[in-house]
Amino acid sequence: MRAVDIIAKKRDGLALSSAEIDFFIQGYTRGDIPDYQAAAWAMAVLLKGMNNRETTDLAMAMVHSGQTLNMDRVAPVVVDKHSTGGVGDKTTLVVAPMVAALGQPVAKMSGRGLGFSGGTLDKLESIPGYNVSLTIDEFFKAVARNGVVVAGQTADLAPADGKLYALRDVTATVPSLPLIASSIMSKKIASGAQAMVLDVKVGRGAFMTTLKDARALAEIMISIGEQVGRRVTAVLSSMDQPLGNAVGNTLEVAEAVETLHGCGPADFVEHCVVIAAEMLRLAGLAETPETGRALAKGTLADGSALAVFKKWVAGQGGDARVADDLSILEQAPLRQVVTAPQSGYLAGIDAREVGLLSVELGAGRERKGDPVDHAVGLVFAAKVGAQLETGDALCTIHARTQEAADRAQVRLLAACTWSEELVAEPPLVYDILRG
Amino acid sequence: MRAVDIIAKKRDGLALSSAEIDFFIQGYTRGDIPDYQAAAWAMAVLLKGMNNRETTDLAMAMVHSGQTLNMDRVAPVVVDKHSTGGVGDKTTLVVAPMVAALGQPVAKMSGRGLGFSGGTLDKLESIPGYNVSLTIDEFFKAVARNGVVVAGQTADLAPADGKLYALRDVTATVPSLPLIASSIMSKKIASGAQAMVLDVKVGRGAFMTTLKDARALAEIMISIGEQVGRRVTAVLSSMDQPLGNAVGNTLEVAEAVETLHGCGPADFVEHCVVIAAEMLRLAGLAETPETGRALAKGTLADGSALAVFKKWVAGQGGDARVADDLSILEQAPLRQVVTAPQSGYLAGIDAREVGLLSVELGAGRERKGDPVDHAVGLVFAAKVGAQLETGDALCTIHARTQEAADRAQVRLLAACTWSEELVAEPPLVYDILRG
Repeated sequence: MRAVDIIAKKRDGLALSSAEIDFFIQGYTRGDIPDYQAAAWAMAVLLKGMNNRETTDLAMAMVHSGQTLNMDRVAPVVVDKHSTGGVGDKTTLVVAPMVAALGQPVAKMSGRGLGFSGGTLDKLESIPGYNVSLTIDEFFKAVARNGVVVAGQTADLAPADGKLYALRDVTATVPSLPLIASSIMSKKIASGAQAMVLDVKVGRGAFMTTLKDARALAEIMISIGEQVGRRVTAVLSSMDQPLGNAVGNTLEVAEAVETLHGCGPADFVEHCVVIAAEMLRLAGLAETPETGRALAKGTLADGSALAVFKKWVAGQGGDARVADDLSILEQAPLRQVVTAPQSGYLAGIDAREVGLLSVELGAGRERKGDPVDHAVGLVFAAKVGAQLETGDALCTIHARTQEAADRAQVRLLAACTWSEELVAEPPLVYDILRG
Repeated sequence: MRAVDIIAKKRDGLALSSAEIDFFIQGYTRGDIPDYQAAAWAMAVLLKGMNNRETTDLAMAMVHSGQTLNMDRVAPVVVDKHSTGGVGDKTTLVVAPMVAALGQPVAKMSGRGLGFSGGTLDKLESIPGYNVSLTIDEFFKAVARNGVVVAGQTADLAPADGKLYALRDVTATVPSLPLIASSIMSKKIASGAQAMVLDVKVGRGAFMTTLKDARALAEIMISIGEQVGRRVTAVLSSMDQPLGNAVGNTLEVAEAVETLHGCGPADFVEHCVVIAAEMLRLAGLAETPETGRALAKGTLADGSALAVFKKWVAGQGGDARVADDLSILEQAPLRQVVTAPQSGYLAGIDAREVGLLSVELGAGRERKGDPVDHAVGLVFAAKVGAQLETGDALCTIHARTQEAADRAQVRLLAACTWSEELVAEPPLVYDILRG
């Protein structure tokens, strides 16, 4: 078998065999197949596609390129969740303790933000003392003791995916549904998930900007799950405007804490309830999503989710006082309230632009490895559908400098659109696909 | 400007600007743009295409990546010829002295064989003493003194093309018309040609297997020529069966010498006359192709082409006695006559298969840098259309060993097809496109 022949086959639009895909991926992981061959192959895959069988083979070849975790000791059925990435998405911070409060442990490896999209690890690290670097042993001990653990990748999971993703990033081969689907699924399968809820974001502030693409991606991932015996539920959720009110690391932690206290923004609470309900259903703790919803809401009302949150944060070295005293979080030196420049209905908040301006404020990173400023970001006082008068508060910008705040304000106002007519609140969830 | 954005633009099927193409090619030549980005870009170009303006920009960017030769001192109008490569193609050995005998000097840089396709330098080196490695100074002196010089590349011409071609070879990105056209044209333009005859081979033993592709390639190259002020004539010629009777280095030199003596195989003689006539027309030495044909034929009849051939060979250190005494060429130890296995009309000789079996005999190379065996090859006694009785001579195999001869015989017989019905002689030239 020769790499060049495999590239040519895909170039000509033919389906690759399981053996060819495995040969290519293991060869690439070992370094026998050089980057330039993988780059040509990835472009051919992007432009010619892969069928579901090939995509599953690709995911499993990447799984087999490294270690796999056995999570049997964590729970009878290990249920993971994954978001495809968005703006203001602090869902894990609320959903993990919700589900764990109901007896389903959550042991999760998470990632960092890049570009317009935030990352759960960055948010958690804004809690003083919180440690994301655990050994595998510490990881398992933490979930057994506290019900939740969320850490960075502790094992050499799917190294082919890591290597290929870095290459795709610099060769314009990221936006390929089979490559995205196999990348996500390989990580989840290698990390031991037996079932998973995939939160597939759709809209301006997501990698999938159309519902059609998001649905196609969800269907591919469900198909992969079916072929390898993993139950997958995909929630197609809106990311046209930011999720919740807060964007930025400590600001999002604060919003998550408020939510656990029962005082979260309506859209974010609803989103957490939807995701938690699907996880509970997959875990066998709720017969139907409706039962799951009721159970999940109950953990906010009775304080049990908040209690798990405290144990979890303390268990990873974080200052659990954050659950009752938000002032222990770092504060940005400058807060600037942005007001509505006109009367009318707020018709749109471009989530991508908000993500990018929060990167410019320092809350995110343009390149891997860049540091982030935990304290900066923005908190909306109004979301799409709100009726405002000129001068009403629209948003508070938390910035390091006046100059940064002013720049962010200009960008923010340009990211908002207005209407004279009543604007309906946009849908939060477009569809739920249960594999 | 960023390489990844240029790749993405081509991936999305958009036309690249002149500045983007130049940025990418000069960056790649310098090594600022790595192989993996060039590989993804090449695959995107292969699958999404390039318009004629882009293809011209690509050719000229490759020209500007290195030195360019000024051939003004060679002739008022420098006319080059180029074959896209085939089996038994010893045309340059006859056409160059034909044209030079009529007062049009030929200063040509040629290449080596690879895969099924032979190379002029390998053929010339089978003449004892012939030196293909000349300095630029020697190159110009040789053509001034002898009317013809044919050497390997003496200057750093279009280094981007050399680097990109090597990459395309291992990334399955060779068969792209814009990449092939710009590659050929960049070399010819960098080597100083003001006009050129492109012999675009079509068929089983060529890189273009269909007339449609060959015509498209020819039209792109003519378009490039028009845009940069080079006159281009493309001859679309058949390469379904080998050209002439001989395949193999000394065997092809011998056939060229016989042709210069006026005793060449009809198809090869006709092909040389066509190419020479077009070169003479471009050089302004013949008003029409018909005049050019008559002039070219005259150089065979009056011995003037043979005389130039002797001067040329001697001028590059070769043993010019070869022009009168073929026994000075190395002989293979074993000659095996293959006879017709049945009576009937010879309906096909698969040129690609003949090329590949000659590589197996040792006459060609599978990988760059491999040595070739000058003496081995095969000489056909019959071509497509011939009527043979069982036992009539079909071909003589010149081999190193009995085992090699036997293997070649099996492959050769499998490469021939037969018919009970009269088979017309195939066309030699499909079309001539004059830019």
